[in-house]
Amino acid sequence: MQRMIDWNPALAALPLSGIRRMFNLAATMKDVIHLSIGQPDFPTPKHIIEAHVAALNEDKTHYTMDAGLPELLSALSEYYSARTGRRLKPENFVETTGGSEAMFLAITSVAAPGKEVIVIEPSFVLFQPLARMAGASVRRIVTTAQNGYQVDPQEVIDAIGPKTCAIILNSPGNPTGTLYPRSAIQAICVEAQRRGVTVISDEVYDRLILDEVEPCSVLDCNPDLDNVIVASCVSKTYSMPGLRIGWLISSEANIQTLRRYHMFTTTVGNTPGQWAAAAALQGSQQCVAEMVAEYRRRRDHIVSWIDAAPHLSGYCPQGAFYIMPSLPAGTDGSAFALKMLEETGVCTIPGDTFGESCRNALRISYATALETIEQAFERITPWLEQQSF
Amino acid sequence: MQRMIDWNPALAALPLSGIRRMFNLAATMKDVIHLSIGQPDFPTPKHIIEAHVAALNEDKTHYTMDAGLPELLSALSEYYSARTGRRLKPENFVETTGGSEAMFLAITSVAAPGKEVIVIEPSFVLFQPLARMAGASVRRIVTTAQNGYQVDPQEVIDAIGPKTCAIILNSPGNPTGTLYPRSAIQAICVEAQRRGVTVISDEVYDRLILDEVEPCSVLDCNPDLDNVIVASCVSKTYSMPGLRIGWLISSEANIQTLRRYHMFTTTVGNTPGQWAAAAALQGSQQCVAEMVAEYRRRRDHIVSWIDAAPHLSGYCPQGAFYIMPSLPAGTDGSAFALKMLEETGVCTIPGDTFGESCRNALRISYATALETIEQAFERITPWLEQQSF
Repeated sequence: MQRMIDWNPALAALPLSGIRRMFNLAATMKDVIHLSIGQPDFPTPKHIIEAHVAALNEDKTHYTMDAGLPELLSALSEYYSARTGRRLKPENFVETTGGSEAMFLAITSVAAPGKEVIVIEPSFVLFQPLARMAGASVRRIVTTAQNGYQVDPQEVIDAIGPKTCAIILNSPGNPTGTLYPRSAIQAICVEAQRRGVTVISDEVYDRLILDEVEPCSVLDCNPDLDNVIVASCVSKTYSMPGLRIGWLISSEANIQTLRRYHMFTTTVGNTPGQWAAAAALQGSQQCVAEMVAEYRRRRDHIVSWIDAAPHLSGYCPQGAFYIMPSLPAGTDGSAFALKMLEETGVCTIPGDTFGESCRNALRISYATALETIEQAFERITPWLEQQSF
Repeated sequence: MQRMIDWNPALAALPLSGIRRMFNLAATMKDVIHLSIGQPDFPTPKHIIEAHVAALNEDKTHYTMDAGLPELLSALSEYYSARTGRRLKPENFVETTGGSEAMFLAITSVAAPGKEVIVIEPSFVLFQPLARMAGASVRRIVTTAQNGYQVDPQEVIDAIGPKTCAIILNSPGNPTGTLYPRSAIQAICVEAQRRGVTVISDEVYDRLILDEVEPCSVLDCNPDLDNVIVASCVSKTYSMPGLRIGWLISSEANIQTLRRYHMFTTTVGNTPGQWAAAAALQGSQQCVAEMVAEYRRRRDHIVSWIDAAPHLSGYCPQGAFYIMPSLPAGTDGSAFALKMLEETGVCTIPGDTFGESCRNALRISYATALETIEQAFERITPWLEQQSF
């Protein structure tokens, strides 16, 4: 007898990525403009590279503590204590392989059979599949381009039921770039805490804020961290995504549980990369200001180009480097994005990658030089004029 | 209302590590000799560090493909094709965050509720908890120091039942250093394939072979890879554990499933570390020969010191850098190891960390300078003489 592996049925919850299909087609084409990239396009700042090289030359290539490099955990506690006004200790953190492992640990440690997780759509590709893989059902709260993908906190609160174990937040978010106001996050956190529901907050874009507004972390909205897990990383802020340094933040007791879980998933993180991350957090933050200024310039242009383009409903995202305009209701964004790629060479990500409710939208990344984005719109604007719906 | 997080009950399968308890006590003491370290004590070879630094200076700090850096996947396919005589393609691999994520993906993708996983004790700390976390039961096959922790393949074959989904092998193994002969691995693989049972083989120590014997990979024992998943890494072979570069090997179809799962756990690996790993696989292998020669010298001494020590039953491990002598039957190795640490300052790892059946054993690592190991035995040999059982 010979057969394929009889996989754990839980894996059936993990879909093939819609991003992959676009990239596969793009790989067969010439002259493609990618507005599809989910990572910063800037080089990693020099002082961070230098700290990384120094760690290698000092032979820091062996295991560190499984919770994370002590110097990084200290740097994180100082960084967040200064940002939030809340005194955080190294024991409030566990280092992870990027924001991905952070969210993997957070979601699959809380979601479980018989439980329900509230997710706001459009949602980052990992959230819903991970909740389902852990056996939970997903309660989707729909937001739309028409109101800038803002969430009505009352809708989230009304969705909390006896099975609700977690609410996942992501502000500013991928794929929308939408920043929730403090009032919305505060309202959700207060009710979640009252009801014993865990708020899992993906805050990897928390430093990429494009307007003169204070971003709000769930760390600012809770008197204690018993029902809060925050995930973040250095990837987006300091343009070092390939080093895979992320972390979780919660109460000391919760972090003990998450550290034990992490021991069994990846055990320890990359050592010299953690030295580089500590240097990023402790060094000059001028590099971040410069990258944010450039994202802002691009955002301002892309918002006006989308406003001028036929058939696209835009809005003004206040964070990250994404915008997700919608096409007329009922449009199959997936077929549309493939057709647009074939006929104009401009690659975007179809909305159904981020949820059922946003099938008629396209994620456009502006982590690309402004001139390239301009060329893309010079192609797609006249092409859009010829489309009928 | 305020409460702790109601964790996913699956996490209850993950125990607190016995290693941690020893390290916590050792941290409060002066003059501790660690025979407890699970990583090579050599610096990472210079040409590997240089390749890593070059990657950083070339700004290779952004995401690569989620399956792994294409150049690393190519290097792996050439490396294994040359070693095994089996033609492997880049599509037979997925890169992971060290051997840990590799085994996490392999075990939790196959183990599931209603299934059984066969594990040979003493077993590496991750294996049994991960199988149980995924919902499977564990069928333990016991081996002992008296016969060098060799497994009787017939005992494994007889344990296969209708619920058996996987057999986990680890040769040479942590914590025993035991190398299984080809005949044993071949017998298990043939029967597993016939019965449609997946063989998951942790081969991270496959290059640390201390005698003139050919190690046997399960890759050599199967006509195809439909029922085989091999995990390995560069950590032990090239003394670069803190870079966290590992991989899985299987059929192309299985690797597609494992790549998708990996997409949801850590998404991508560390980019410059993957360049360093490719340099390790493709560069001169003289560094490995030198490290193995030193491990062999230490092994030869430690085997004779254990033979000379009262109350310890030793054997001659042929691989890795561990030996796991047993104490008289019925001894609580955990209490014994703590007492020995307190009274002699020598830190070892108690056997119950690796399974119920080896409570009366101690794992001794010789990833430490020979002079240090000699000092440790100068302390523990006279101390052992004074112990009664």
